[in-house]
Amino acid sequence: MANLMEDDVFRTFTTYAAIVIVKMMLMGPMTAYYRFTRGSFSNEEDVARKSAEERKKMLRTHPDVERVRRCHQNDLENIVPFVVVGLLYALTGPELSAALLHFRIFAGSRIFHTIAYICPLPQPSRALSWLTGMGVTLSMAYKILSTVLLL
Amino acid sequence: MANLMEDDVFRTFTTYAAIVIVKMMLMGPMTAYYRFTRGSFSNEEDVARKSAEERKKMLRTHPDVERVRRCHQNDLENIVPFVVVGLLYALTGPELSAALLHFRIFAGSRIFHTIAYICPLPQPSRALSWLTGMGVTLSMAYKILSTVLLL
Amino acid sequence: MANLMEDDVFRTFTTYAAIVIVKMMLMGPMTAYYRFTRGSFSNEEDVARKSAEERKKMLRTHPDVERVRRCHQNDLENIVPFVVVGLLYALTGPELSAALLHFRIFAGSRIFHTIAYICPLPQPSRALSWLTGMGVTLSMAYKILSTVLLL
Repeated sequence: MANLMEDDVFRTFTTYAAIVIVKMMLMGPMTAYYRFTRGSFSNEEDVARKSAEERKKMLRTHPDVERVRRCHQNDLENIVPFVVVGLLYALTGPELSAALLHFRIFAGSRIFHTIAYICPLPQPSRALSWLTGMGVTLSMAYKILSTVLLL
Repeated sequence: MANLMEDDVFRTFTTYAAIVIVKMMLMGPMTAYYRFTRGSFSNEEDVARKSAEERKKMLRTHPDVERVRRCHQNDLENIVPFVVVGLLYALTGPELSAALLHFRIFAGSRIFHTIAYICPLPQPSRALSWLTGMGVTLSMAYKILSTVLLL
Repeated sequence: MANLMEDDVFRTFTTYAAIVIVKMMLMGPMTAYYRFTRGSFSNEEDVARKSAEERKKMLRTHPDVERVRRCHQNDLENIVPFVVVGLLYALTGPELSAALLHFRIFAGSRIFHTIAYICPLPQPSRALSWLTGMGVTLSMAYKILSTVLLL
């Protein structure tokens, strides 16, 4: 049990995985914050206490809310693969320095991606941070497949 | 290999992870059920055997289908982080009683969340069950980071 | 550490998990490709260099882009559960032949699902490949729960 957590590569992976997953989860409360401040909801029961006229207005989409939701969706599409591939990568016994490089670049690129998406910063800042994160995950997947391939 | 499954905390995690993942997967067939009973599809090929007029009608969205899809999306955003964080948490060697408390509250809150979303129950039942689940995952993430932090 | 990767079932799982995750990740670049060739974007900053009139046109949705996005979403809803359940399944010590059967059918069914969705092939090809993948994951979840259940 504890022997996995005695391994430095696995501890490093655990740290960065927890950080990026928590970052992804915080997009949920951020969506809720934008929904309340912009007055844009998806469900009838969320605006049940309002007058009929207000309700109709509040059930429309708002560009700021949709932006946060797209950012959250992009996290799901990129952070979840990173965590899965990173876990298996950590188990293939890579060098600590190589593993740290992968995890740090990924975490940095995804935090920058969120800033670039929400502000928003001019392109290609968002595109490049997305490509960087994807490159890290594909690099780890390549390492996995070249080490343990058994079809 | 088998030594992970000899650990009671890991076995408990495995059980609850399987339960919440299966619960999440069942949203797929439920969406299909609502699509057929409400006659609301997204793809031309899904309604290929119908007349041109019927086809047009059946390619519109329906509020009940969209509701199930939002519930499924919320599961993806919350259950996947729970499973990842819970796995790493189980490997940090927590007390069995503490682990059980986390896993049971999470599973209960997500099952209640689905009921509150689909029925739907009046707010804040859905909001509270969502916050409860998120609190459990963040609590486990805090435990992980305070135990194995290695940046 | 390395002892997990010395286990043939776990190595097989690692291989197939990496393959289906990489397959899922490639839907991201494919979406980008369709966005550029069809001229359909979601964010103001993505079309900042165009004239006001062109911008308005390019911020509309396009059916081909939406199709790829639905396929990506379906991958998230099915491949992520497979990876999580498959990891726990591999740790319960199944027969190598049984594990290989599950992983191979799943990987095949999801690759076929993507082809059936993007081309698109006439139904029920997409529905059947979706059901096949789901059946594999549920079969592994059943094996897990019948082996290690501890509530």
